[in-house]
Amino acid sequence: MSVTVVGSIAFDAVKTPFGERERMLGGAATHFALAASFFDEIRAVGPVGEDFDDAAFEVLRTRGTNTDDVEQVAGGKTFFWKGEYGWDLNSRETLDTQLNVFEHFEPKLSQASKDSEILFLANIVPALQAQVREQATGAKWVALDSMNLWIDIARDDLRNVIGMVDCLILNDAEVRQLVAKPNLVSAARELLTWGPSAVVAKQGEYGAVLVTADGFFSLPAYPLESVVDPTGAGDTFAGGFVGYVAAHRGEPVTHDLLCRAMAYGTALASYNVEEFGTDRVARLTGEEIAARVSELQTITAFQDAPVALRA
Amino acid sequence: MSVTVVGSIAFDAVKTPFGERERMLGGAATHFALAASFFDEIRAVGPVGEDFDDAAFEVLRTRGTNTDDVEQVAGGKTFFWKGEYGWDLNSRETLDTQLNVFEHFEPKLSQASKDSEILFLANIVPALQAQVREQATGAKWVALDSMNLWIDIARDDLRNVIGMVDCLILNDAEVRQLVAKPNLVSAARELLTWGPSAVVAKQGEYGAVLVTADGFFSLPAYPLESVVDPTGAGDTFAGGFVGYVAAHRGEPVTHDLLCRAMAYGTALASYNVEEFGTDRVARLTGEEIAARVSELQTITAFQDAPVALRA
Repeated sequence: MSVTVVGSIAFDAVKTPFGERERMLGGAATHFALAASFFDEIRAVGPVGEDFDDAAFEVLRTRGTNTDDVEQVAGGKTFFWKGEYGWDLNSRETLDTQLNVFEHFEPKLSQASKDSEILFLANIVPALQAQVREQATGAKWVALDSMNLWIDIARDDLRNVIGMVDCLILNDAEVRQLVAKPNLVSAARELLTWGPSAVVAKQGEYGAVLVTADGFFSLPAYPLESVVDPTGAGDTFAGGFVGYVAAHRGEPVTHDLLCRAMAYGTALASYNVEEFGTDRVARLTGEEIAARVSELQTITAFQDAPVALRA
Repeated sequence: MSVTVVGSIAFDAVKTPFGERERMLGGAATHFALAASFFDEIRAVGPVGEDFDDAAFEVLRTRGTNTDDVEQVAGGKTFFWKGEYGWDLNSRETLDTQLNVFEHFEPKLSQASKDSEILFLANIVPALQAQVREQATGAKWVALDSMNLWIDIARDDLRNVIGMVDCLILNDAEVRQLVAKPNLVSAARELLTWGPSAVVAKQGEYGAVLVTADGFFSLPAYPLESVVDPTGAGDTFAGGFVGYVAAHRGEPVTHDLLCRAMAYGTALASYNVEEFGTDRVARLTGEEIAARVSELQTITAFQDAPVALRA
């Protein structure tokens, strides 16, 4: 039993108001794997360059993540991203993107990765996501992330692959943009008609919402007093969310199960942003995750104590 | 027993993607009173012009709001605001502001208004808010709203009056701006050291958070598929929130009580934005409010079902 994730494995250079790193392990598949590895064996699929050293492999293999399908391209360089965050961490500027080995990436899943019952298609070209979905013959539940760039330049391909998955995980602005509807709930409901049975709209510092045929669920982000580096928060959320579903393989993927999965995703993401890159989640413990899920419950619960209302 | 609110009573001209109104009743005190009147008798204090007609008075007096302290200025014109909202209703542009009778407003509370145990200082010049607070000798619990303009040009006065109230209700951006801290939780905690025992940070379409010495609480906005006019949502929230506290007068104003108050404020605000101006809340029923509070509980609740996590 395992979860396969296909996506970027990268080196990031990040500057935030709280510090700077010139080269640290990053990428969507990396952050996803670090979080999801708490729940199941993860199989990471993606290309890296010759510069991807043992130390980087070691972090990627945290909690037993399998890297047999991480393709190290001879003479190639690992995908590189450089960005800087603004004062309140809610805006960020991309300063440099070097696709490197990612430019000609053609995902090839081993039989073991094809056999995974759970698949996460991290943000890559939608046509490649569709190829991966077709290769992954064993996948019974598939989640997909994307980005505004593909909505702009490859919307038809994106719509096609969305029709092949069970769960869509996007930023709220992307949900609106994808169907050109200003209202988030309406937009998410429309996306359910494209095929998925669940849409998760990530709202950054505000949290995330879940829309399924059976209802709506909203969960705030965990309230942190110190946020150091938001990079990878969305993929870490996805790792906790998809990981929780994987841990309940065999059970029906109900609305209630996905609500609980949201809490695990949110807890994981909150740890990710406390330090640069993968540092915090790499050394995280299950007890810490459980504690934060429990706190999330406390800070969202209220008693419904009816009051006499005047007419 | 009553709640006194001091603030603007206005005519608004509003254009949204869903329609346009050239002149409708608005203003912070108006929206607050419409919502709070479900919980207690409201005493509205504010100036209007000769153009404030019987129809406007009738709406303001919904559910028995007392207008004895609404000062009709001979020869004067009512405060006028004109604005237009963008595509997703999250941005708005002020096209015209005519202070009119509001320019020389000097709040004078009648003895009955001074005797109210609960006082809401809607957004007006901070120095005037302080004068009202001093007049309101019977007030035992006071909440205050403000805006970025006063943080920019009258921060000392604002800080002074914040030291005189129990609860601060601001937008999240204003909470950050007021103490020049990018982190919302840290900023709210710092504001608690200025005097109030509770800080509510409104987050627009995302909901609101509550910070007290006893904890943190977050509640999403009620998920609507159709939002027509967001004008007055914040003051309607405040009306439901403060009204709920008023309905529990005599009880300690605990963190838990304020969490429940947040739910009532959120429910009221969700109705307010469904139609233009005061239309929806004017004909709202207690049953409708209770239904939405109950739904808010459903869409935020999740079971904490621990899962075995890998080390």
